[in-house]
Amino acid sequence: MSRAHATVSEIIRSRRSIRHYLPDPVPEDLLNDLIELALEAPSSFNLQARSIVVVTAEAGREALVEATGGQPHPREAPVMLVFVAESGAWREDRADVWEQARRCGAWSARFAAASPDDVRAFHEEPQRRGLERELAVKDAMIAASFLMIAAHAAGLATSPMNGWDEAKVKAAVGIPFRDDLHIALLLPLGRPAESRLHPGRRDRSLTVFREAYGR
Amino acid sequence: MSRAHATVSEIIRSRRSIRHYLPDPVPEDLLNDLIELALEAPSSFNLQARSIVVVTAEAGREALVEATGGQPHPREAPVMLVFVAESGAWREDRADVWEQARRCGAWSARFAAASPDDVRAFHEEPQRRGLERELAVKDAMIAASFLMIAAHAAGLATSPMNGWDEAKVKAAVGIPFRDDLHIALLLPLGRPAESRLHPGRRDRSLTVFREAYGR
Repeated sequence: MSRAHATVSEIIRSRRSIRHYLPDPVPEDLLNDLIELALEAPSSFNLQARSIVVVTAEAGREALVEATGGQPHPREAPVMLVFVAESGAWREDRADVWEQARRCGAWSARFAAASPDDVRAFHEEPQRRGLERELAVKDAMIAASFLMIAAHAAGLATSPMNGWDEAKVKAAVGIPFRDDLHIALLLPLGRPAESRLHPGRRDRSLTVFREAYGR
Repeated sequence: MSRAHATVSEIIRSRRSIRHYLPDPVPEDLLNDLIELALEAPSSFNLQARSIVVVTAEAGREALVEATGGQPHPREAPVMLVFVAESGAWREDRADVWEQARRCGAWSARFAAASPDDVRAFHEEPQRRGLERELAVKDAMIAASFLMIAAHAAGLATSPMNGWDEAKVKAAVGIPFRDDLHIALLLPLGRPAESRLHPGRRDRSLTVFREAYGR
């Protein structure tokens, strides 16, 4: 059931995290569209320090069942999206990014030329504080969040999963020894086999504050 | 310019991060709606381990200018949203959450009753690995991402900001000595005073992989 005519507000309000999925495959065109919308998410310096591994084969999904301690999602959902955070992105050559932004007219030649140095200078502090990984995870989370909303608009369900053994997930997607890559999130994608009610939200006096944090 | 009739796909594709803002205040009703949509974002165990501090007063925004090394956003944008990650949430009493989810009919009485123990068991591993902060930051990022999309649909601009001195941001929102609270993101919100072109995205062969990570 596509929700093409629903407003963003309606989409956000009606989205629920879904635990059980129908086996119907996600059409390839739709899957490609959703991944493109995820990658439209902004990222720090447009570094795009995140990747998506699309796992559809049964062996890969079974490895993710094992990595999540036997959760049903990876077995039932036809697609598992593994969001990978690339904490070493800022050390890599991203000439393609600077050149493309300049060619698109989005960045001036001067801004593009300064970017490699700016990126290095910016990362000194997070590196010192051990937050390189967190920075990349944050960009991966924006992408995953955009996909959660886009998927629901297209009539598909997702459920952000944090309960997994990171080493096992990394092994499942072929990067057991990559210290520069981290798992940000697992996101099953497919047609929902259940409906879920809204579990409510805490009183806003506990979660929203004016001018200063209040508790 | 509200984009109430645009599809989610159009909203996501046309959203850009904006550096310069008009001083027009964000109407209170709209601000409340956007915050509500942010808080609709899912969170791990529905723990809602994130809060939003809404900074509109000039003194607070000037403190954020200083904390961001002189960036223009906090001075120009009428609203600065500070997303706070609460890494100690899982140790706190969240009886209100369990009780509300049960009352809404979203969780069974048994599931609600087991949640405090489940939450503690789940957090043992992240605690051991020093990832409690990252977990809370991830939930804050989903909320911030939902707000980015909702704001653009309502005709307002945002720009996720990572470049700040965390101690200074914490001082600006009144939590200089709270080790259990962390800054996930700064998000200026307001009417855009500029338009930005799309800077492009890396070739998908570098960012999307099937079954296994490929570079």
